[in-house]
Amino acid sequence: MDNLYFLNSTWIMLGAILVIFMQAGFVLLEAGSTRMKNAGHIAGKTVFTFGLASIVFWIVGYGFIFGENANFFVGLSDFFYSGTELEGSSYSTAAFFVFQLAFAGIALTIATGGFAERAKLSVYLIFSVIFTALIYPVVAHWIWGGGWLAEHGKQDFAGSTVVHLTGAMAALAATILLKPRIGKFNKDGTANQLHGHNQVYTALGVFILWIGWFGFNAGSTLGVEEAFFGYVALNTNLAAAAGAISALLVSWVVFGKSDVPTMLNGALAGLVAITASCAFVDTWAAVIIGLIAGVLVFYSMRFFERMNIDDPIFALSVHGLAGVWGTLSTGLFATPELATVGLPGLFYGGGWTQLGVQAMGVAVSGAYAFIVSFAALYVLKKVLGGLRVTPEEELIGLDMSEHGSYGYPEAFELKEHKVAK
Amino acid sequence: MDNLYFLNSTWIMLGAILVIFMQAGFVLLEAGSTRMKNAGHIAGKTVFTFGLASIVFWIVGYGFIFGENANFFVGLSDFFYSGTELEGSSYSTAAFFVFQLAFAGIALTIATGGFAERAKLSVYLIFSVIFTALIYPVVAHWIWGGGWLAEHGKQDFAGSTVVHLTGAMAALAATILLKPRIGKFNKDGTANQLHGHNQVYTALGVFILWIGWFGFNAGSTLGVEEAFFGYVALNTNLAAAAGAISALLVSWVVFGKSDVPTMLNGALAGLVAITASCAFVDTWAAVIIGLIAGVLVFYSMRFFERMNIDDPIFALSVHGLAGVWGTLSTGLFATPELATVGLPGLFYGGGWTQLGVQAMGVAVSGAYAFIVSFAALYVLKKVLGGLRVTPEEELIGLDMSEHGSYGYPEAFELKEHKVAK
Amino acid sequence: MDNLYFLNSTWIMLGAILVIFMQAGFVLLEAGSTRMKNAGHIAGKTVFTFGLASIVFWIVGYGFIFGENANFFVGLSDFFYSGTELEGSSYSTAAFFVFQLAFAGIALTIATGGFAERAKLSVYLIFSVIFTALIYPVVAHWIWGGGWLAEHGKQDFAGSTVVHLTGAMAALAATILLKPRIGKFNKDGTANQLHGHNQVYTALGVFILWIGWFGFNAGSTLGVEEAFFGYVALNTNLAAAAGAISALLVSWVVFGKSDVPTMLNGALAGLVAITASCAFVDTWAAVIIGLIAGVLVFYSMRFFERMNIDDPIFALSVHGLAGVWGTLSTGLFATPELATVGLPGLFYGGGWTQLGVQAMGVAVSGAYAFIVSFAALYVLKKVLGGLRVTPEEELIGLDMSEHGSYGYPEAFELKEHKVAK
Repeated sequence: MDNLYFLNSTWIMLGAILVIFMQAGFVLLEAGSTRMKNAGHIAGKTVFTFGLASIVFWIVGYGFIFGENANFFVGLSDFFYSGTELEGSSYSTAAFFVFQLAFAGIALTIATGGFAERAKLSVYLIFSVIFTALIYPVVAHWIWGGGWLAEHGKQDFAGSTVVHLTGAMAALAATILLKPRIGKFNKDGTANQLHGHNQVYTALGVFILWIGWFGFNAGSTLGVEEAFFGYVALNTNLAAAAGAISALLVSWVVFGKSDVPTMLNGALAGLVAITASCAFVDTWAAVIIGLIAGVLVFYSMRFFERMNIDDPIFALSVHGLAGVWGTLSTGLFATPELATVGLPGLFYGGGWTQLGVQAMGVAVSGAYAFIVSFAALYVLKKVLGGLRVTPEEELIGLDMSEHGSYGYPEAFELKEHKVAK
Repeated sequence: MDNLYFLNSTWIMLGAILVIFMQAGFVLLEAGSTRMKNAGHIAGKTVFTFGLASIVFWIVGYGFIFGENANFFVGLSDFFYSGTELEGSSYSTAAFFVFQLAFAGIALTIATGGFAERAKLSVYLIFSVIFTALIYPVVAHWIWGGGWLAEHGKQDFAGSTVVHLTGAMAALAATILLKPRIGKFNKDGTANQLHGHNQVYTALGVFILWIGWFGFNAGSTLGVEEAFFGYVALNTNLAAAAGAISALLVSWVVFGKSDVPTMLNGALAGLVAITASCAFVDTWAAVIIGLIAGVLVFYSMRFFERMNIDDPIFALSVHGLAGVWGTLSTGLFATPELATVGLPGLFYGGGWTQLGVQAMGVAVSGAYAFIVSFAALYVLKKVLGGLRVTPEEELIGLDMSEHGSYGYPEAFELKEHKVAK
Repeated sequence: MDNLYFLNSTWIMLGAILVIFMQAGFVLLEAGSTRMKNAGHIAGKTVFTFGLASIVFWIVGYGFIFGENANFFVGLSDFFYSGTELEGSSYSTAAFFVFQLAFAGIALTIATGGFAERAKLSVYLIFSVIFTALIYPVVAHWIWGGGWLAEHGKQDFAGSTVVHLTGAMAALAATILLKPRIGKFNKDGTANQLHGHNQVYTALGVFILWIGWFGFNAGSTLGVEEAFFGYVALNTNLAAAAGAISALLVSWVVFGKSDVPTMLNGALAGLVAITASCAFVDTWAAVIIGLIAGVLVFYSMRFFERMNIDDPIFALSVHGLAGVWGTLSTGLFATPELATVGLPGLFYGGGWTQLGVQAMGVAVSGAYAFIVSFAALYVLKKVLGGLRVTPEEELIGLDMSEHGSYGYPEAFELKEHKVAK
């Protein structure tokens, strides 16, 4: 161990802290995008699902991804990780563990975004365990743990596929099985806007996610060699900026008003999209990837609504579609001279072959995450007698139904006063 | 000075920034746990008490803890610290100063948690000076500054005793002298819930504190040697996660509903408890320490309520009891091979002797903090003609009584409109 | 490239992340200081103006400041910055780029603070481009990019002039041309308080800005040599603390109540003031600079009100006057032995000559920023048929007028219910 080892480990540790901080961003994004009666519940669930993810990742998740004695499916060592340091590594394994744990936590938070405003507390608890044990680690092993997609050359620098698409596919399975929220769609198939209750929260959440993404992407260099993280951070910032601007403009042109939530989703879509390619593309390509992601998210939000799929926190558009776009755009824009950096073994070959591998990786990973999530939730639905709180509980809100007190008790005194009259 | 010196200093600086960021977490935790009419006051007091702590720590606090020419009680140099760098140190003294200042600020913020919703502004100001000059530095000198408890082998890696217990004992003295808030207890001794007004704030605050704790605990390695901070961060995260889960489950089992504030306090209790031992115990022990802390905090919250002690921000349960549990659990779980790391001179011997020293350290430190706080506040009560605002002021709220404007003026227009009819 | 290069780059990257995080602080500060009906708009504009700043800075801003082939006015290379690393540098150019981009973003956010609660969305968009392309880079080139003020010896360690004064002068131009908000001033010239709607936001914003400032100031060492950042951070913290305390006390003495927003502005004024001199002054001088900044901001807030200049977010007082005080105080307090650190080429000579240069730098930079901003906005006013939304739109709020939905839809249901009766 020398100074470079210490420095690499410091960088990874900072990355881990920033990615865990993204949970605070999700608290704000998800609570702000939903209604007051569910705010305490949504904020609280983010804490305990991250707690569950942490413990389950420690017990089995990490071992399934990075363990030795791997079969075709997962790795098989390092369960109940004890803090053992890998010999010959260029950074601390313990710091790397926390970094990876943080990623698993983000994927789960994206997934449970699809549950918002109607799933039972018990469903959150049980699905969190299943997702962190059996869904996320399998995809992560295939792509990051030396599994079969990695062997085929599938590249995903910081997790457009592994984290965002996997989370979004679980959210899709959940939102299909849960069905839309009461009042979201009318009998004629038209949609109502169930406005989120606090745009200051969502904008603040976006900035926390934005800076967290420097840990997510630039941290994924897993070290300081060549100080390449600076370039990755630059691309990350440009794509986020471009996504915000294009979503703002397209919404303004189409609606005549620029919608704040759409603009914020544009920034996030830019971040998700650049996640796969941030280390492989030129700065101008980062801007284009972000611009397109912002436009895509605008149309995607409307598309899911027209399909009568209720996506309260826009997980399908922001993390799903932009995750796919990001992974494929790597195939389109990767620059040879930038193609051999980052994670040991990472190499972006470029060209049509690589694009095919990227597409296959997206398809297989997405399918696995969707099918296993759907199956798990389907069984849970039978076992628990439904995934969803009762209509009465949903109308009162999950703060009261699942936790016994409002997240905003004084605001509800005013509301009830109004209703009472 | 070489690269290792620079790197150690960078790590300590990052730790200092994260610990100061915890003040933002406390703004949210404390404001969210209390009522709207006091929200601006509570948020504001966190800023100016940290300001006072910074200045007083610079004038005398640091010198009392780490100064030379120490007598049995405190050190006696480095007042009005000028930025002088200690020769032969492995890190920058100025960075270390900011790190220590941040810790003193946290202890004070915990202490003033006991004042919530009823203490006069002047009491905050004067007690902040007393605490940062005469209470915190003495305990910190005894344990971290080479004082008599350190000589007896008392270990407290990152401050379960020095920061959390000291703060909580001051909060206890305050809450006893201030008496409970109006409406908290009925004449028959039963308690009412004075619900905090915003659980999104509290959950967000918990995540900010959670990542701040990586600075608090992993930063307390005071350097990057062996990249040991990764291991410390791992234990910290596991204990927080375990505390959240056990508090959630025990609250669900006992009440039939899982209470959000209890779950959040469970995460914090796990963090407080692991603070003493994070560098000395195995990962499985970190999980157990966290699980027990989560259960303890649940019962502790009810215990203080039954004792008719009003603890608005749960400082006694979260920082007090979990601080004691953390310090003692170090005696139970410390692992020999992990016992010689961290602060120069830190060595955790383990065994019953060490457990005895830990218990003595807790008892003496806690007693000192309680007695001096009680005496200071008792004198203040006489001098100021009471520590507490008038009942009328308390009912209107401290935003108006102490600062002349509501923290949420538009919400109060609605409230007053309702009351007026 | 060696370990020191990597470490310097890591430090700059951390600084960049912290400075970008300051945008989250401004979301809270600005939204909290204004009214509910504009909250979503203000939070959202912070995101898309930072997006615009990022893209424009990438296209031309960076090249104008730091490009080669400089004429008397600006540099002329590195447009559409591609990530090229400067040879022979002691840190990564890409990381430095992100750091500088973050500073440009802060200056813009300060500038648009003067637009609050009445400017059209299109004005934000167009002025953001103009400011980031033609105003900020010119001043930054003159002082930081080797331009003519730098040649005269003008010093501005981290941007009291370049960032804060430039932003504040643009805000002044805007607020003059926009005229005061409806209801701010009465016909007899007396002022009404248009209270901000959420002091928890503002206090939280202050803490985020406070820690962001460690990136701003301590990050401006642009490296870890001598671990001098620790000293800079110490001075930064002391000045912020002193500013909070003096503003609290002066407000208490003058009004009989301590005003929370004034105290918070005191902390910010301390931070702005120390920004110029944090690397050049003794710790006691940092305390004095902060104390005076806190008093100045109190009187300045009243002064602008008496002048019937509407400064909704106090940009003129906090960033303008404190920026001037900070720049001049460098001339008063700089200490010879601290005068040769930080940015390569930085040297603070001290004495009356230096004070004269500082004053000239303030005057010229402030005048340039004011005049160009005023001219640009004046032309825009003609072209767009006014900078301001209609009175009806202003009364309804910009959330609805510019974006088509309230930031707090459920709160407005209650408000409208109240109005309806």
